[in-house]
Amino acid sequence: MRLLIFLVSVFCFGCGYAEQSFEQVSTKLTELFKKVEQQQIAVADAVLAIEESDIELLLKPSVINPEEANIIAEGQIACTGASQGVLCFDLSDLDRLKKEGKEIIWVTDYIKNDDLCHLHNFAGIFAINEDPSSHAIIVTRVYNIPCLTLPANVVKTDNELITPYGIYKHGDEATLDGFNGRLLLGKVPLHVHSDDTFLKKISEWSEHFANLEVHGNADCAKEAKEALDYGARGVDPRTEHMFFLPERLHLFRKAILLKGENAAILDELKELQKADFIDLFQTMGSYPVKIRLLDPPLHEFLPHQEEVLAVLAEDLGIPLDKLVSQVKSLNEANPMMGHRGVRLLLTSPSILKMQVRAIFEASQHPSLEGKSVTPHIVIPMIISSEEVQVVSQMVEEVYQEVSHAVGKTFPYRLGIMMETPRACLLAGEIAPYVDFISFGTNDLTGQTLALSRGDVYDKFLKFYLDKGLLKADPFSEIDPAVKKLMHICVSQMRKINSDVTVGICGEHASQKVGVFICHQLGFDTVSCSAARVPVVKLLAAQAAIIHPR
Amino acid sequence: MRLLIFLVSVFCFGCGYAEQSFEQVSTKLTELFKKVEQQQIAVADAVLAIEESDIELLLKPSVINPEEANIIAEGQIACTGASQGVLCFDLSDLDRLKKEGKEIIWVTDYIKNDDLCHLHNFAGIFAINEDPSSHAIIVTRVYNIPCLTLPANVVKTDNELITPYGIYKHGDEATLDGFNGRLLLGKVPLHVHSDDTFLKKISEWSEHFANLEVHGNADCAKEAKEALDYGARGVDPRTEHMFFLPERLHLFRKAILLKGENAAILDELKELQKADFIDLFQTMGSYPVKIRLLDPPLHEFLPHQEEVLAVLAEDLGIPLDKLVSQVKSLNEANPMMGHRGVRLLLTSPSILKMQVRAIFEASQHPSLEGKSVTPHIVIPMIISSEEVQVVSQMVEEVYQEVSHAVGKTFPYRLGIMMETPRACLLAGEIAPYVDFISFGTNDLTGQTLALSRGDVYDKFLKFYLDKGLLKADPFSEIDPAVKKLMHICVSQMRKINSDVTVGICGEHASQKVGVFICHQLGFDTVSCSAARVPVVKLLAAQAAIIHPR
Repeated sequence: MRLLIFLVSVFCFGCGYAEQSFEQVSTKLTELFKKVEQQQIAVADAVLAIEESDIELLLKPSVINPEEANIIAEGQIACTGASQGVLCFDLSDLDRLKKEGKEIIWVTDYIKNDDLCHLHNFAGIFAINEDPSSHAIIVTRVYNIPCLTLPANVVKTDNELITPYGIYKHGDEATLDGFNGRLLLGKVPLHVHSDDTFLKKISEWSEHFANLEVHGNADCAKEAKEALDYGARGVDPRTEHMFFLPERLHLFRKAILLKGENAAILDELKELQKADFIDLFQTMGSYPVKIRLLDPPLHEFLPHQEEVLAVLAEDLGIPLDKLVSQVKSLNEANPMMGHRGVRLLLTSPSILKMQVRAIFEASQHPSLEGKSVTPHIVIPMIISSEEVQVVSQMVEEVYQEVSHAVGKTFPYRLGIMMETPRACLLAGEIAPYVDFISFGTNDLTGQTLALSRGDVYDKFLKFYLDKGLLKADPFSEIDPAVKKLMHICVSQMRKINSDVTVGICGEHASQKVGVFICHQLGFDTVSCSAARVPVVKLLAAQAAIIHPR
Repeated sequence: MRLLIFLVSVFCFGCGYAEQSFEQVSTKLTELFKKVEQQQIAVADAVLAIEESDIELLLKPSVINPEEANIIAEGQIACTGASQGVLCFDLSDLDRLKKEGKEIIWVTDYIKNDDLCHLHNFAGIFAINEDPSSHAIIVTRVYNIPCLTLPANVVKTDNELITPYGIYKHGDEATLDGFNGRLLLGKVPLHVHSDDTFLKKISEWSEHFANLEVHGNADCAKEAKEALDYGARGVDPRTEHMFFLPERLHLFRKAILLKGENAAILDELKELQKADFIDLFQTMGSYPVKIRLLDPPLHEFLPHQEEVLAVLAEDLGIPLDKLVSQVKSLNEANPMMGHRGVRLLLTSPSILKMQVRAIFEASQHPSLEGKSVTPHIVIPMIISSEEVQVVSQMVEEVYQEVSHAVGKTFPYRLGIMMETPRACLLAGEIAPYVDFISFGTNDLTGQTLALSRGDVYDKFLKFYLDKGLLKADPFSEIDPAVKKLMHICVSQMRKINSDVTVGICGEHASQKVGVFICHQLGFDTVSCSAARVPVVKLLAAQAAIIHPR
């Protein structure tokens, strides 16, 4: 019966199209809550009747009367929410528009990597050819910027958008309706959320039913606070994101190029990281902060512009041509399958030790007295049990030193990213050496399907999806083969070490299919971007009601 | 008892070092054959007592008195055999040396991709820093060029080799002893094989016991003939190798850049391929010729030098800057995980159809009357059953056209490369649509371990092997995780389609560990380079004796 109600509600949502607005949701939830109160339906049935979009409409601004607005264009929803501003085609005009106090809706073909650091400037993004499962789109969700992609029948020139509805120019006022997939003309009235009675009730119900604990993807204390406010019970920061700030990047580049062999540079980096970690621990208290050590391919950190290289060479005291050839020698044919993650940490062990020391020292900082912080260390790109054993030994050495220095013992937990097929297939061998694992389904999907996420969409993935050569975008929905690897991994691992905690990072766990799979495979935690936490909690509850463990 | 003899012989071989020579092997085999004749031991025990190196010493030239020679340096054996010549440090001097009638032993740090087309010039190769499992090393085995790598305590300057034994110069006479891992001073006497009584007997015994049929890696009729002479019962050519000849490359580049949309160019390519295939079919008769359609990443075909691009642009009638940007747009961040294999064939279907038509037309050529040729088509880089279904339909369409044109029906077989984890994990879905599969363990290993073979050795793989972070080089020995995927694949596939034939391509199946795994997993065929065929037949027999199916 419950399954039936659930299916019917999904079906109705899927086929009949009606504009979505806060008003609708408010009416629906008021009725639902009344029925529960009057015991006309069970709480479980009420939970099943709530949609993902209901929660998002409670959380985010939305267009009050979407059916009355004039449409500029229609596209796929990449990030929900609504926002207003002027259309901006030309980033060189950004400063002027901002000085005039304008909010900006950026109109672009693609969101390039170089654009990511500008995203906070935008109230909305209309990205005409962007792959809906790209890293950039995920970043819009993390930053909670309403975003549409792949609009139908739209041509963009340097400063105009030509659509079936008219021609629109740089500077025109518009509203981005990320609930109904439309770019609208002018500033139309928005509902901005104020009261959270509905949300609190739904969150309470969700936690009652769910087996999965929901964590947030957050790289700094500010993001962790946001996740916490949305109801997260832990966060999964990635340390390298802390290195991308310009003043730190220079320092970090020096550490990399010296293979971590300069103690002063390492110490400076350690202090920076330590300060970050203290802030994170302060924010999260006894909730787990699972800190992932250095992960991405080296080349992402290294400069290629002549002038940056020149400054770096001078600073390192080596000739420019020598530096250029060193940087060149670090280039890789397939960086995703190259010298990164634990491979980098093991060949530059002083960087690994620096990071671990920063984590341990931060966790024992006097300002955290009484917060009962347990440091969690996550090793990326593991392929073998031997790697884990060697890292584990190094971590323990650093632990002994820090423990001795602070004059007390403290607990810590060591975990790994499960992001290579090999680690999944040989999980039984790895199991004795880890306290927890976290699936990194982006990399795992990339390797399992031999797909380089960044550049396959335009070249053939879109074609594959259009022609049904793959049934769903594997970077949005967990692929059946990846699911199989996850199943093999979890069952082998738990057979050897029943205490191991199993989680997942990344966008896959933000989506319904992903949350249901994680529930059914017996996961303990799922992580998602802060603003998705209430939705994922609901999905976890629905999964638990439909498939009781 | 048999297992014991086998283990003892392996053990003795592994620990006691004695120089290997034809003389030794000849004595050993003479005694062994006598014992069999006198029924002192069973044939199976005799088969187990024969070593890989015994067969190689029967097949290839070897140093007659290795213990008497003066050593220049000692290194790891990359390709067995012995050869003589002068040391050459400088390829610009190659022509002069060849004109003087000299054989050449090339001394180099690495064998770069650009060097592969020169390899046929060398009698031997001494490659100081080359990864022993690199593609280049495999090519030396295919070309049967004695080769040593990673010598101990050797320094190479521009024209000198400084070793613990002395200093040796460009032009010095030397002998490369690929059986004892030594570069020797001067031209020392070699034994060159003449009589093949031993080999014939061993081959007969091997075929009697083995369950595995041994095929050869061969790209053209000449190589196929060689494989056949060594005892192969089929070959696995890769069509793209046929495109690397300079005059064809230009034509093929045009086809790629026009996405196969120029009928005249395609027709010209088809005729070239068809002629190659007719030669292959002529050579192999009713033995299977499993032709792999276009596989490698696109960028391997595209030019980057200004002058080559200019010629191509003129020939295509497009402006140079447009061509440059087109070539640039085809660049990929991780080409191994990019637009290649079936992905390229499906997005440029006219190239696929051209290749299939060439195969079918060749197989029905009047000159092959009475040879009962069954064309075998192999699709690379499969990840989904849907891909196979679409390709299968296209192949059938071409079949119908060719069959109609030649006025008769004929059998053909469609197979796929198993080289992605996804295809292995979802093999049951693919099973109904294929007649045979062939594991491509190089790519499969790369994806399973997230290792980009070409550039990880120096950066960390060597470190990993030295430190025991991986127990064996996964590009030499089938990795345990890859073995697991192969097991999952074969068992699922056979459950759905018991008629499917299972094989493996590439170097993994040339080695003992690989052959034993393939035998135990119930494979039907293994492929290796021509000169390894007699060895692999022996290994297949040993596997069958020790682990009867």
